[in-house]
Formats: sequence, C-alpha cells, structure tokens
Amino acid sequence: MRHAVIMAGGAGLRLWPLSRTSRPKQLLRLLGGSSLLQASFERVASIFDPKQIYVITSQAFIPLVAQELPEIPQANLLGEPMGRDTANAVGLAAAILAQRDPEAVMGVFTADHMISPLDRFTRTVEQAFQLAESSGDVLVTLGIRPTRPDTNYGYIQRGERIVDGVFAVQKFTEKPNVAVAMKYLASGEYYWNSGMFVWRTDTILNQLKKHLPASSIALVEIARAWDTPQRLERLERLYPTLMRISIDFAVLERAEHVFVVELDCHWVDVGSWPAVESLIHADAEGNVNACSDFLHLGSRGNIVVSEERHLVATIGVDDLVIVHSPDATLICTKRDASAIKELLENLRQKYGDKYA
Amino acid sequence: MRHAVIMAGGAGLRLWPLSRTSRPKQLLRLLGGSSLLQASFERVASIFDPKQIYVITSQAFIPLVAQELPEIPQANLLGEPMGRDTANAVGLAAAILAQRDPEAVMGVFTADHMISPLDRFTRTVEQAFQLAESSGDVLVTLGIRPTRPDTNYGYIQRGERIVDGVFAVQKFTEKPNVAVAMKYLASGEYYWNSGMFVWRTDTILNQLKKHLPASSIALVEIARAWDTPQRLERLERLYPTLMRISIDFAVLERAEHVFVVELDCHWVDVGSWPAVESLIHADAEGNVNACSDFLHLGSRGNIVVSEERHLVATIGVDDLVIVHSPDATLICTKRDASAIKELLENLRQKYGDKYA
Repeated sequence: MRHAVIMAGGAGLRLWPLSRTSRPKQLLRLLGGSSLLQASFERVASIFDPKQIYVITSQAFIPLVAQELPEIPQANLLGEPMGRDTANAVGLAAAILAQRDPEAVMGVFTADHMISPLDRFTRTVEQAFQLAESSGDVLVTLGIRPTRPDTNYGYIQRGERIVDGVFAVQKFTEKPNVAVAMKYLASGEYYWNSGMFVWRTDTILNQLKKHLPASSIALVEIARAWDTPQRLERLERLYPTLMRISIDFAVLERAEHVFVVELDCHWVDVGSWPAVESLIHADAEGNVNACSDFLHLGSRGNIVVSEERHLVATIGVDDLVIVHSPDATLICTKRDASAIKELLENLRQKYGDKYA
Repeated sequence: MRHAVIMAGGAGLRLWPLSRTSRPKQLLRLLGGSSLLQASFERVASIFDPKQIYVITSQAFIPLVAQELPEIPQANLLGEPMGRDTANAVGLAAAILAQRDPEAVMGVFTADHMISPLDRFTRTVEQAFQLAESSGDVLVTLGIRPTRPDTNYGYIQRGERIVDGVFAVQKFTEKPNVAVAMKYLASGEYYWNSGMFVWRTDTILNQLKKHLPASSIALVEIARAWDTPQRLERLERLYPTLMRISIDFAVLERAEHVFVVELDCHWVDVGSWPAVESLIHADAEGNVNACSDFLHLGSRGNIVVSEERHLVATIGVDDLVIVHSPDATLICTKRDASAIKELLENLRQKYGDKYA
C-alpha cells in the first residue's frame, strides 16, 4: 500500500524570531490561516487517505502537530527524541511502516515548501510511485528545474532519459558555489534536490543496511518495539547513538538505481526570510508585508512580517527584513539574512535560551 | 517673588511611537528612571521652592503630571483645554501669577531639554533674574552657543555687550536654511533660542497687551476667574478663540529691551530621535541603545529604543532609528527622522487614532 511520510523535523532557525526552539517554522502561520505543515498535509491529503499519512518530527512537537493535524491517527505521528538528520528519520519511518505493512511503498514529503499548482504535483507523485512500484530496487527523487544559481540546494545531474520527465540520475552534488551553480543552471542538465522521494520501504531499508549498517540495525530494533511498551526505552537508548547524516549523503549518492522525476511546479523552500518574498504579492514600491498593519514612506523592497496585531512603520529604508514577534524584533538586510544563524549563536551566549 | 513656570505643552510627535496623543514626550522615560519632565522639575527645584514652581500643560495631562510631580501644589498645575502655542501659555501663566502675586518675577523653563552641568545653569538663571529685576521693562532670554548649523532652532543675534555673557539682542531670526545657519555659526554672534525666559509678570503682560491685545484681554479675564468656580466656563469659552502664536513671534521679536544671557551648558533638545543619540554612551560600533536587550551583528551607528522588556536584534544595518513600543515599531533612517510628522499624517488617514 502507498503511504506518505511528511518530514517535519527541521528547526527553521533562519526564520527567527518567529521560529523558536519551542515553535518550529512548520507551525508558523506566515500566509494567513494555515501553517506550512497544514499546507503540506493538505497537499498530500489530496492523494492519500489521512490513515496512510505519517509525520515524523521531534517528540516535543507531537502534541502541537496532533493539534494542527487532527485528521491523522495518533499512531502515525512519529516522535524522535532528538534530531539525527534525514537518513535516520527516513529510516525510522521506513522501519515502522515495514513493520505495519511489509508491502509498503513510501513517499517522503517536506513540511516547509510551498508547491503549486496542485494537479501537477499530484500527477508527478503518481508517476514517481508507478516508477518505484515497477521495479524492486529503484529510488526515485523529485527534481525541481532551477530558476537561479542558488547555492543553498544540492543539485542532481540527470543522465539517460527514461520517458518524458523521467531520467536516470547521473550524479548528486553538494551545495555548489555560485560559479558552479551558474554552470549547472546554464547546462540545463541539473535539478534542485527537493528532498522529496518515493521508494518501497524494503528497498530503502536494504540500502540503509548496506550503506549505514549501524543505524539500520538500531532503527529496526526500535521499530520492532514501536507499538509495544518498550518503545521509549529503545528510543532513548539507541537514538542518541545514531550518526547524524542526510539520506542524500548516506544513500542516494551511493545507490545504483536512482531516478529523478521532474516536478514542473512553482516550488518555494520557505527556509529563510527572503524566500517569503516570493510568496506574497508586493506593493507598488516592492514591499511585501505579511503582517497586520504596515505603513511606509519612501521605503522599497522590504520584507515585513508580524504574526500578531502590531504596526510596523518605515521611513526611507530599502531591502530590509523586518520581523516582529511579541518579545523580539529582527531588523536585517536581505543580503545578510543567512547570518541569522550566527546571530543566534551570539544570542545564546548573551541571553541563554531567553529568546531562542 | 520669583516663580518658575515649566512649559509642558508640546506633543512631541517626532518621538513617535513612544510619544502618543495620550502620552506626551515629557512623560517618556528615555533615560532610565525619570521622565524628561521630572528631570526638568529637579533642575528647577534646585533653585525654587516647589510652592513657587508652576507647570502649564494640556488639561488632559494634569493627572499624569500630578503623579509625576507630587511635590508641586495642585493649584500650580495649570491646564489648557487645547494648545494655543507659547504666547498664550506664557500669557495665561503670567496672568494667573500676577493675580496671586502682583510682584511676581517669572522664569519660563522647558520640559524637554537636558541641561548640564547644573551649577552653571543655576548661576545663569540667577543672573537672568537679577537682570529682569533690575529694571521695569526688560525681557531676558537664555541663549545657547550653537555647536552646529542646526536648522531646527530660531537664532538670536547679539548686539551690545552689557556685562560678561549678557548682551542686548540685535535680532531674533526664524529657523534658517543650512547656508544661513552656517553663516550664523561662523560669525560667533548668534545664539540658539532656548525657549527659556525671565521677566516680571507685569512686564510680559504689558507687552502682550501691546502686541497681542485680543489674547491679553481674554487671558486676564480667564485668570481673574482661575481660583473661582467660573474657571472652566471662561477657559472653554475664551481659550479656543485665541490665535496660535509663539511668544517669540508675538513679543520678543517686537519688544525693545530684550537681553540675551549666554547659558554655557551642554544643552540637548530632546525633540527627535537623533537628539537621543547625544544623551547615551555609544558602543564600540557607534550604536546607542536605550532599551532592555539589544544584539547586533555588523551594524553601526544605530539608535535603538524600547521602553519595555523586548529584544531588538540587527544584522548589517547602519544609521537607523529603531523604536519599539508595545503596539507599533518604527524603522527609519536617521536622515529621515524629521519625516515622522509626515508619516503620522498618513498614519491618521489610514488607521485613524489607533496608533496616534
């Protein structure tokens, strides 16, 4: 049976001060009514029955996620005691799925992307599932056609064309520098690695056994106890010992039968404040405003965000990111938005967990 | 007898969003414990007994002022039903004083300036009182030696030297443009008009009678009823009909025996955010911070203000004014700080009184 696993583990530090240790970015309501996680769920729920949808996230967030997504059965909300990167999160979900349904085929979906239009997304996911089901040992990844030489993504070089929009993967690459990213963009042969994958659970578990044997053993042992009273004991004993590594690095870069299916969608990784800009219609002066009240005089190209009732007023400032939260306000150039991680290190040194 | 009148009528729009219609800048605690008004009172109280100190302000602020300055007798808190500029405020205070003490000599002091050191201030005020008391018809103004070609002040050109630091006034001038202000500065003959004056009440009342007869009649009529049950009726009937005009324009520019006494003090008119900068010690990167928590990365020359517990964090921004209040945040270049008045007009159009 087909299942969907939504990966909701990231902290989203680069969306501070709205995202916090206690409230990850997936739960932010940046775009009015629904959170990124709810939007992801609704997208996936257009294909899967909620009983077939899983979410894997930090244990601490499970109550929040259950509130956000009451449609999903509690048993499908998988909590990690701490983050151990995507190889282990995918592996844990696969091992639990395999335990419950040995024939399971799983789609791995992200919780912090905006994707449209929906019908192209569902068609591409269908195509990816058919490909994964057609053969016992293929790994399928969804690739996004790059629109700029972005250095924040891994890239996938396509090889032999299988059918329209489906290619064998030639090579996975790490995040490139700008010069390399520009070459990739110009060649027309590269996709952004979307972090969305489709495979049979037995296939991915075999791959993990081969390439990440220690994790594989531990994860299967945890999964065997998942629906028993021993779950917590095993999780707490074994999970901390797992090596942090991404599924791309652990498996996809090393596996043999990897295919990329082109996802021809408008795709926005809502991982940083500048990304929010492309989601919101700008005013005549190029300001985008995801907040209650905003007034400006001679100000251009700013991104202004506030979750609660609060007025932000600007005079004569350009290309800033301005984010207001009840106890902290960030003012940052768009250019420097990636330095938020460094700011947060200083923040912890100076104020501990107070604003983190 | 000598009396002090603290003029606390201004709204202080340029200190928005901390100053509001309901909370004028004189009551802001920008520098820790005490408000600008309290600092003004303490300065004046080093010379005068609190029973001889008066405050004139908006009727609406009288309860707040009484809380701030419990030392001053209630009868000395003079409320205007609306602002009618300094000629009428000074005239009303003078008329009430004359009613209570026909021999009164009054010093007019401001409520929104920082002045130091105190001993030079008291010595200069003593000198000004002696001058005002020495002759029946002189008006004495305190002048500040300009330190920059500021275009926000009126200037006083000095004439004949009377004694050290005391000159006949040659001419009062309106706010000049930069070129003119630079000439004034270079000449060494000009003072900033501090808004502080000393004169006998009968002298200023005679001058008002001569130069502003309609106001003069109305103000005397109000003053006669001040300590009677008719006060409110007269205030509400007559005060709205008074013409808005400053004491400088109405009287000082036209009177004959006007003297300027040089006040050789560090003097800061806390009328705008950039002025706050000179009151606070800057950090190594030139940022001044009158707020609870402040963290910055690669940011220089910013003025950051918040009254309550709130973190302001900046990355890569220079020379901004950042002011946080519970319901509104201002981000403005220092260069554009004087455009706050224009912003507030737009604010009223868009949001009414909500944030004003």
